[in-house]
Formats: sequence, structure tokens, C-alpha cells
Amino acid sequence: MRKAVTSVDMVSRPRPGDVLGAQDYLRDMVVRTPALRSMALDELAGCRLVAKAECLQRTGSFKVRGALNCARLLPPEARARGLLTVSAGNAALGLAYAGHVLGAGVTVVMPQDAVPAKVEGVRALGGAVVQDGVTDAAGAFRRAAQLQEQHGYTFVHPFDDPRVVAGAATATLELLEQEPEVERLVVPCSGGGLLAGAILAAETAGRTIEIVGVQPDLVPTIVRSLEAGEPTELDHPPTIADGLTAPRPGRLNFGMIRSADIQIVTVSEAAIRAAVREIVLALKVVVEPSAAVGLAAIMEQRIGVADGATALLLSGGNISPAVLAECVTAAG
Amino acid sequence: MRKAVTSVDMVSRPRPGDVLGAQDYLRDMVVRTPALRSMALDELAGCRLVAKAECLQRTGSFKVRGALNCARLLPPEARARGLLTVSAGNAALGLAYAGHVLGAGVTVVMPQDAVPAKVEGVRALGGAVVQDGVTDAAGAFRRAAQLQEQHGYTFVHPFDDPRVVAGAATATLELLEQEPEVERLVVPCSGGGLLAGAILAAETAGRTIEIVGVQPDLVPTIVRSLEAGEPTELDHPPTIADGLTAPRPGRLNFGMIRSADIQIVTVSEAAIRAAVREIVLALKVVVEPSAAVGLAAIMEQRIGVADGATALLLSGGNISPAVLAECVTAAG
Repeated sequence: MRKAVTSVDMVSRPRPGDVLGAQDYLRDMVVRTPALRSMALDELAGCRLVAKAECLQRTGSFKVRGALNCARLLPPEARARGLLTVSAGNAALGLAYAGHVLGAGVTVVMPQDAVPAKVEGVRALGGAVVQDGVTDAAGAFRRAAQLQEQHGYTFVHPFDDPRVVAGAATATLELLEQEPEVERLVVPCSGGGLLAGAILAAETAGRTIEIVGVQPDLVPTIVRSLEAGEPTELDHPPTIADGLTAPRPGRLNFGMIRSADIQIVTVSEAAIRAAVREIVLALKVVVEPSAAVGLAAIMEQRIGVADGATALLLSGGNISPAVLAECVTAAG
Repeated sequence: MRKAVTSVDMVSRPRPGDVLGAQDYLRDMVVRTPALRSMALDELAGCRLVAKAECLQRTGSFKVRGALNCARLLPPEARARGLLTVSAGNAALGLAYAGHVLGAGVTVVMPQDAVPAKVEGVRALGGAVVQDGVTDAAGAFRRAAQLQEQHGYTFVHPFDDPRVVAGAATATLELLEQEPEVERLVVPCSGGGLLAGAILAAETAGRTIEIVGVQPDLVPTIVRSLEAGEPTELDHPPTIADGLTAPRPGRLNFGMIRSADIQIVTVSEAAIRAAVREIVLALKVVVEPSAAVGLAAIMEQRIGVADGATALLLSGGNISPAVLAECVTAAG
């Protein structure tokens, strides 16, 4: 006998049907990104790897999946008021793309030190960018609240929304279709949307699979939140993984991560740089630092080797040329 | 009424059936590489682009297609004598992979200044590398002739062989299946195998399509050969496009290029660097300089803009970290 669901987390938790609906909608809208392999990388890692190259996704990251799925499910009048989000860049690019496709105006609040290519990309898609005086992610959320109040925009959360999570889940669901033998998923996490999506995708596919989340050592928000038992905000120094700096995990996502008892590990900045280098040179795809934390965790032995195939979710490729050059020429 | 065919070129010219046979064989052996698009790149180029990402191919270049196709068609006793080739690197990697898969020993002669990752890659696949005293491609062919004499190896030409050309053609045939609306192909060329393969693939697909070959300004061997009416060797300074330094076009390939009246253009070193940068940042794939000459030709206006979609064959991604860093940080 099930009790009535009362908590917001349980009410809003997306279901497998939501993921399948998102997948149907997104089929012709996004790229079915390849799952890449490299013997050289397997040797380096000491285990068989498959890398889902969401860096080759439209807008250069998986974020477009959730943004499109959320935007299509909004009532037309909500879209007509204009869409608003907060982002280090990839969620902004995703929402700008969704606005471009669905004919909705988009405004994004990004920190002043966002990767310039991410800012330019949003503008190229017709999005308005607000950066003045925004020094960090927490400040960006405050500014967005003001803008919403002033202009009546419809806020699309960059990660803490069941429609966004269901969209993100399609990346993992696709991967599990492409590579049925995957036994472990290693997922970058910060707001927790991709990680919650992975949990949901495994459920949707009816697969029991080990899932590990990875954060930078410098921004262990989900680790601390799990210790505290609730989403917890951290002050943190800058990390090269600019996409993994959400002030705290999403409430929905945190609930899903905690319920599924997911292991979260953290990695050093040096390992992230080295992992970018190895991915670029072995797989020939360009990843941003945030996307390389999974390989970094394996290289740094923060997670063990496995017998079966391990999948890395290469979440995005929007890296500045200077950081790319720095990573590939770092002593390895 | 057809006259009897007497020239070697005409006798050995591969036919559509050879391409289809290669495609059948290679289907489970190589990656069906994606055809990538980017709105940012289209804007830069002033035309619609599709990029066939053979940099994501096994061994990091299209060369594995021809090497595998040639090696499988050799008599078993020829394979058993051990395979030999000459290469700046990608043909060597391709043949080493073919030897690895088909159980044949492989020896490759490479110039002393070959990209270290290419040399290491051949060794990792179990190939023996000969570099001592080999200062250029012409010297590499001489050394290979000596080795063949001494050891009885079976020589697999890196580009001038109908089986190699039929294998290379499968990259273009795949592209034409993936992107039926392509109206123009822009193809890096040096030995001419990929270009001859493109001509053959268009014929196989029954498509009338504009095909343009691109060489570095510094190594215009096919341009000079067409002027001379026969394959002509050139002294040339070093180019950043290390894969486009065959001493002269293959005889078979030259005949096919001349018969098809293909336009060949050349591009500057600076444009090649800039094109690497743009491909890396917009398409998120890692290309070596040789693979970027097609976009360089468009950026430098060595070929005109077109109304229909233009396909770039991104031939490979085996670039040294230092050259990659240099290209992406070059003023653009």
C-alpha cells in the first residue's frame, strides 16, 4: 500500500515516461552523439572505456536536451513572456538554442568571468546576456530573481526541474542503447541534473548499473550536501571546471541522488587538466574541463578499476583556446 | 565500341563494385564517422558546411580504410611475409592496425621528424618503425625498397593502389549516404588516394558533384603534375600539414584526377593554422593540419562560396600537442 506523496521532491520526480517523451521529441532536434573508444585510453585507464561525446551536441553540451524539453512543455503564454536562466554558459547556450528554435526571447545571467565563447555563442543565437556585477553563481541567481520580478520572464531552471532532468536523461538513455554492455557510468555533477538524469535513464532502461558522480576537489557541494542531509551552499575558490560551480545541488536532483545512494568522488585540478589532454589526444574530441572529471577520477584512482565497460559522459566542449592550449601542453 | 585497355592506369582503376565490396568488409571494422555541422562555422565560411569527421576514425585517420581493404585482399602468403609501407604516419597507423587485426607483421618507414604520437601509435599496435637516416618522404620510399629487397616484405603502397583507393572511397560514399544534399566535396590531397577515392565514390553513388582538391601552397605537387602532364616530384620546404608531403601523386590517382578534370587549389600555412583553430573550437573535434586545408581554402577564398552544402573531409586528427596549442592560440 502506497502512502500519499507529499514532499515536493516526490511530487515532481520525473518518471520513465517523461524520459521517453523527451527522447521522442528530441530525436530530430539534437544530435545522436557517438560513443567513442580508444585502445590508448583504455590502457591508460586500466579498464574498458566508452565515452559519450556530448561535446559534439548542438551548442556544444548536453544542456540543450533539458532546455529544449523544458521549453517545449511550457504553456505558450509562458514562452511568450520570454525565457530566463542562470548559467556558467552551457545551460545558457541550450536555452538560447531552444528559444531560437521555438521562437521565444531568451535572457541569461552569466558570471563576468564566463568563458567568452559561451557568451558569444548565446548572443549568436539571439539571446540577451546580463553579466554586469555578477561575480559568481549565487549572485547570478539573485540577479535573475530581480529580472524575473521586473520583466515577468519565465524562469527555466538550469538543472533543478523535472523537465530539464528528463531531457538530460536522454543522453544516458541513448548511451545505454548504443552500448548495452556498459556496467558503470561516471558522471560530472554540480547542480546534479545530468546525474539525476542518469539515475532516471537507468531506471527507464530497466538497467541495474553502478553510477558514480564526480566533482572538483575545490567544489564538493554534493558531497557536503549528502553529509548535511540537505542541499548546502559552499564558498569555493575558482576551479578550471567552470561548468561545475552551481552554488548548491538542485533540491529535486539531490533527493534523487540521495535516494539512489550514489557515490560521489572528487578530483584535483591537475588531474582535470591531464584528463582533458588525454581525451583530446586519444579520442580527438574537444572537451571542456568539466567534462573531463570522470576520466580524472579514474586516472587519480578516486574510483577503482572495473571488469566491465565504464562509460564517461563527456558533458561539453566549450573551452577557451587558452585553457585548451594550457591543458594539452601540461606535463603529462 | 571500346578499345582494349592497355595503360596500367586504366587496367588497375578500381570500379564501383570494388568500393561496395570494401564497404561491406569495412562495415564492422571501422567507425561510421559522424557528419558534423556548426552554425558558427557556416557563418564564418559563408556557406553551408558538413564535415566528415574521419579524425574520429580508428587510428585517427581515414587511412585505415584503405590499409584494411588492401591487406584483406592480399594472398595469405603475401600477408605472411610481413607488410611494409612508407608514411608520414597515418598510413603507417592504418597498416599497423590492419596487421594487428589480420595477424600480419608490419614494418613502416617514417621520416625522422614524424609526429611522435604517430610513431608511438604504430609501436603500440605492434608495428616496427624504421626512421634512422630518413629525412624526407622520397628517402623513405628508397629505404623501403631496400627493406623489401632484404626481407621479402609485401609492400602496401600508402596511396597508389586500387585496393587502397577503393578503401579510401568508402569515407566519401558513407558521407554521401549520410548527407544526400551535398553538392561539393573539398578534399585534402597529396598522394591523391582520398581524392581519387572521392571521384570513385561519387561515381559509385551515381552522383554528379563538384570535387575540389586542396594542397599546401608549399607542396603543390598535384598542381605541378597536372601542368607537366605526369606525376612530378617537387623539392619543398616543410609544411605544418605533415600528412600532405608525398613526393609525388600516385600514378593511378593522378590519372583519375586528370581524367575527371578536378580543380586543385593551394592554401597558406597561416590559413591552415587558422582553420585548425576554427574546426577545433566550432566542431569540437581535433584535426591535424592536413585535415584543415579544405576549410582553409574557403577561408582564404581560394574556392568560391556555393549555394548548396559543401562537405569537408576531415582526414585525420593525429596532431602533436604543441602544434595544437600553437594553432588554437594563433591570432584569428
